[in-house]
Amino acid sequence: MEYNEFEIISKFFKNHQKKDKNQIKGIGDDSALIKIPKNNLLAISTDTLVEGKHFLKNITPKDLAYKSVAVNLSDLAAMGAKPTWITLSITMPKSDSVWLKSFSKSFFKILNKYKLNLIGGDTNSGPLSITLSIYGLIEGKNALLRGNAKNGDLIYITGNLGESAAGLSLLQKKTFLKNVKICNYLIKKHLKPIPRISEGIALRNIANAAIDISDGLISDLGHILKNSKCGADINLNTIPISKILTDNFKIDEYLNWALNSGEDYELCFTISKKNIKKLNVAIKKKIIKCTCIGYITSAEKGLNLIQNQKKIIFKKSGFNHFI
Amino acid sequence: MEYNEFEIISKFFKNHQKKDKNQIKGIGDDSALIKIPKNNLLAISTDTLVEGKHFLKNITPKDLAYKSVAVNLSDLAAMGAKPTWITLSITMPKSDSVWLKSFSKSFFKILNKYKLNLIGGDTNSGPLSITLSIYGLIEGKNALLRGNAKNGDLIYITGNLGESAAGLSLLQKKTFLKNVKICNYLIKKHLKPIPRISEGIALRNIANAAIDISDGLISDLGHILKNSKCGADINLNTIPISKILTDNFKIDEYLNWALNSGEDYELCFTISKKNIKKLNVAIKKKIIKCTCIGYITSAEKGLNLIQNQKKIIFKKSGFNHFI
Repeated sequence: MEYNEFEIISKFFKNHQKKDKNQIKGIGDDSALIKIPKNNLLAISTDTLVEGKHFLKNITPKDLAYKSVAVNLSDLAAMGAKPTWITLSITMPKSDSVWLKSFSKSFFKILNKYKLNLIGGDTNSGPLSITLSIYGLIEGKNALLRGNAKNGDLIYITGNLGESAAGLSLLQKKTFLKNVKICNYLIKKHLKPIPRISEGIALRNIANAAIDISDGLISDLGHILKNSKCGADINLNTIPISKILTDNFKIDEYLNWALNSGEDYELCFTISKKNIKKLNVAIKKKIIKCTCIGYITSAEKGLNLIQNQKKIIFKKSGFNHFI
Repeated sequence: MEYNEFEIISKFFKNHQKKDKNQIKGIGDDSALIKIPKNNLLAISTDTLVEGKHFLKNITPKDLAYKSVAVNLSDLAAMGAKPTWITLSITMPKSDSVWLKSFSKSFFKILNKYKLNLIGGDTNSGPLSITLSIYGLIEGKNALLRGNAKNGDLIYITGNLGESAAGLSLLQKKTFLKNVKICNYLIKKHLKPIPRISEGIALRNIANAAIDISDGLISDLGHILKNSKCGADINLNTIPISKILTDNFKIDEYLNWALNSGEDYELCFTISKKNIKKLNVAIKKKIIKCTCIGYITSAEKGLNLIQNQKKIIFKKSGFNHFI
């Protein structure tokens, strides 16, 4: 069955959630109306996912809904913001009720998991693409910014890098693995990245700068360095790479995935040495799992990759949507 | 020349405007960070414009930039909100510098006119489409909502209806007119609608309910009636239609444009009789130009169109993106 845009909203996207007390108007008026609690900043991030660029043509509506929200949540995580509201603009070739049912079920599942309320949006017909704007609150003034890294800071990464790219490579049949269990694990890492929300909130009072790894470590760390006017020395031997990758792939392959492929949605952050104790407490309490991969230097030193105590030459290339 | 996404942002969309004092972070971090002034509500609206649906394939980048912002501003106008910030997600087949230069010039022109600051966004490659999220402030608590119309309220329309649809019909070569000057005037009405921002702000303390005419009077007034649980009697003889339309087109044609075609972006609002004096003051001060077209009744009476004192039968059909 096909629906028009008003039917799509009322059938699949309206009244699925309780209003929160700061949401004066949600879906169904010319705009949403919200109230920002005192002493809070509002973090706003927006991301478009286009078929064939950010997701494969054969992605299921369930996986698409999860990933589009997770990717946007990751931007809030990198600011240390608490997720609150979201708007969804969806453009799709036809209003297929089976597709919409599956999409909206998965969409509200992740929204409810992260206590996000849908407050508005738009539905259109056209080639499949999704734009989400996501809103988070930051109590006080300590947001995690890209531009606050300081010379001498230590650089850390949450989790592991490269598994998402391995999963994508398997999905695209560029890589093959006999072990179905491992295949499925890596594909899941690509399709269901976990936004590091609680880590980001915990890091607000520990880290100086942060970014999420969406375009690849080299490219994303590059943003921190550019905005902070710093350089960095990275020890390649310490890059967190899972045993699954080191056991099943060649070093060139997984290092390239870890450095140049994106979509891990781990956080890369810098902390001053005086905050190491605080970080260790958070690690001990299992709020955060992270690895030190190097340190911030001065801008004129640039970004250096060191492997087995030797500087190595690398090709700096993150994910670029226009190549 | 072609650019990658970071070059597009830094060359065409960054540092074109002064930061306002409530904008802690704009473009260039994982999210924007804003501070909402005390006693203000934040209005948020989002709209996607897709090639071939909301704009014709041969639209110029200049017209596209203007219209996408104007359409979003119109949603804020219908809430009585003061425009403040905007985010832009643009998907385009290639990063053509001539196109981008023209688009961004026109984009910042309308932004500056309405004191809107660009605080973030996203660029992608794919079939041309634009998603804007727009943010406005409402001092106090009096937003113009769709659901506040009361039985006995008078119904008004700002400006005239139908000219945008006439312009579209000319652009699509469904209609022909010999007079080039009139043709260009009507096409301009379609391409450059004026969002009724100052009218919306003035109406916050006068009107009960409001909506902007994006999908057609019948459809949009229908939203007020549905949300307010009311009916309405509309006198077709009073629908504001310009002399240009009545002189150059048949009555069936222009009435259909006025009732069923959208994109006039005028405001339809209801006021209680006790506020007529206040409205007349605003009309006298030239803050608002509007026409009374009928009144609100009870829900069981439904929506009735009256022409020459007779009820007429009409086909209720606004613009539906999925038909």
